[in-house]
Amino acid sequence: MATGRTMEVGETCPMNGGDGPYSYSQNSHYQREAADAAKTMIMDSILDKLDIQNLLSNTLKIADFGCSVGANTFQAVQNIIDATKTFNSNKTLEFQVFFNDLTGNDFNNLFTTLPTPREYFAAGVPGSFHCRLFPNATLNIAHSSYSLHWLSRVPEEVVDRESPTWNKGRVHYTSNLKVFYAYSAQFKRDMEGFFNARAQEIVGGGLMLLLLPACQDGFLPCETSVSRQYDLFGSCLMDMVNMGMMSEEKMDSFNLPIYLTSPMEFRELIEANGCFTIEKMENFNPYENQDLPDFHVLATHFRAATEGLIREHFGIKSRKIMEELYDRFADKMAENTHLFDMKNMKEFIIFACLKRKNVDFNAEKNQNC
Amino acid sequence: MATGRTMEVGETCPMNGGDGPYSYSQNSHYQREAADAAKTMIMDSILDKLDIQNLLSNTLKIADFGCSVGANTFQAVQNIIDATKTFNSNKTLEFQVFFNDLTGNDFNNLFTTLPTPREYFAAGVPGSFHCRLFPNATLNIAHSSYSLHWLSRVPEEVVDRESPTWNKGRVHYTSNLKVFYAYSAQFKRDMEGFFNARAQEIVGGGLMLLLLPACQDGFLPCETSVSRQYDLFGSCLMDMVNMGMMSEEKMDSFNLPIYLTSPMEFRELIEANGCFTIEKMENFNPYENQDLPDFHVLATHFRAATEGLIREHFGIKSRKIMEELYDRFADKMAENTHLFDMKNMKEFIIFACLKRKNVDFNAEKNQNC
Repeated sequence: MATGRTMEVGETCPMNGGDGPYSYSQNSHYQREAADAAKTMIMDSILDKLDIQNLLSNTLKIADFGCSVGANTFQAVQNIIDATKTFNSNKTLEFQVFFNDLTGNDFNNLFTTLPTPREYFAAGVPGSFHCRLFPNATLNIAHSSYSLHWLSRVPEEVVDRESPTWNKGRVHYTSNLKVFYAYSAQFKRDMEGFFNARAQEIVGGGLMLLLLPACQDGFLPCETSVSRQYDLFGSCLMDMVNMGMMSEEKMDSFNLPIYLTSPMEFRELIEANGCFTIEKMENFNPYENQDLPDFHVLATHFRAATEGLIREHFGIKSRKIMEELYDRFADKMAENTHLFDMKNMKEFIIFACLKRKNVDFNAEKNQNC
Repeated sequence: MATGRTMEVGETCPMNGGDGPYSYSQNSHYQREAADAAKTMIMDSILDKLDIQNLLSNTLKIADFGCSVGANTFQAVQNIIDATKTFNSNKTLEFQVFFNDLTGNDFNNLFTTLPTPREYFAAGVPGSFHCRLFPNATLNIAHSSYSLHWLSRVPEEVVDRESPTWNKGRVHYTSNLKVFYAYSAQFKRDMEGFFNARAQEIVGGGLMLLLLPACQDGFLPCETSVSRQYDLFGSCLMDMVNMGMMSEEKMDSFNLPIYLTSPMEFRELIEANGCFTIEKMENFNPYENQDLPDFHVLATHFRAATEGLIREHFGIKSRKIMEELYDRFADKMAENTHLFDMKNMKEFIIFACLKRKNVDFNAEKNQNC
């Protein structure tokens, strides 16, 4: 029986809704580039690993976890469907696609922008993907792109003034390793929830296709470009504090609920769950041959993903303060172009294709999160 | 293969979203009273007619077609789930509930007001229920309350100035029988689409539970109270035209896409489809022992359901005009209390429990609408 606990988990703010200049749908082409680069890997994985002849029904059920709004989720779904068409199957498949994101996602916008015509029946599923969202054994393909690095919450100890792990004046785990370990432990808890839930929802033989930003094994957080970019963002917030536009206490208690895993760590978490085989796991960098980004565009992308968090945490309604904050961020990035030198970059995208083992899930120890 | 044509059908405006004073969620307790009165019939139907021992899976899939927003859809779903709990079954069921309404429905509001905790996995399904919305044979129980009387469109000929069926100066089929027949033909087309789509989506042995307002057999439209109420509403629009607040041309081309079937007609349409057996069909009047309604409350209910239509058709943005229109309607109803005398009322609610026949639907002539 579903316990309906999906709403009890702390939910971070979803991406900016609508289709305005700061919306995620208008500011997600970096994510799109990663998805485009992974398209061949995704299609090859489906062709190689999906046992379409042994499907129990003629309906292929696909879910995109952390879909947000905009073209990226529709393109990802279409890639999956296109891959199944290259099968030499005597089945006439129907497709049912579930678009999942946090309850606060702009599903109204998602629904009104669904492609027409389309080859699938569409549904929206609100709730945190760290918990159960579907009945047992009802999904054939689970997909998630650029979502798993979002934590369900900031680790408690990093915002506790009494804790040695208090992350004063910073917004990410660059200050010391204790903060990093607290983030890592939260990521572990979140992935346990994610894998346990998906293990119950995906049919035996079903696939999970995951894309997530990560760091190379063995590097310290302060050595990664992205953490240092977050440091720049933190320094912009501190500037705003110093100008009296934000409270220092709020600044000290703000941390980005974002974590970049490593291939080794991610593999360990999958293996600890035990319900999936790792069919493929590759790293790639879709941006490696690119010039320096347009920093205002990059700041606007970051804004689409974080503005909701900032507004909620700081209780900010003023548009002017938001403009100031993200303009500063763009300027600081432009002053620190070395952070964007691909030669030094320790980040890439993990692509993983997992297959649900054919086991009796009633006998397993999976917990309903 | 799903053809994805769900979005090509003309979609009338959904109910008012949000939770403000004119929202459907705050103005649907008349519908709630009908659903409450039908609760026992719905629960008895499930107990009598659902073959729960022969379910192919442990997941019971329920869809509410035309769910709108607010407590009514959640209560209807809970009634269905509660009914299944009284079965003496050795199965541990999971429930997956699909909330369907037009794409423009306020799904964001629906999702944020989902009950917590809840016993089911929830999904939203945007699109017209006159078309396919789900893969073949994937639903166990389809429910629809106070929705099927909404037509997918106003019949073309009633807004054609060159047609003998032009419904000048009226908003419903009270002017002459030609207009009534045009509405009836549209209802027939819509129900063909609805029954064909559901016949494909509901598993053999699955149930369809329908509640819809209707008129007694054999009465002329002008004899029904509700049509005469719509005449009053039309006269309010005409008043607005005469005061220069609306265009006469717009008024002449406006008609309510609402049709009240009769038990005989509805039965014929079910039988013409041929895929369902009629397990129960009853008429009831949840309001028969009630005093006169509060006419301002009644007008606000009507506003929640029709304001979107009126704004779209007349291109009205002014709140003042809307206030004037629905205030006038309340006043005119209060001046015509005889329309609300239950002794003369020819309307009631049809409750129908249909069961999907166990037939090979590949061999049937159902058309994907």
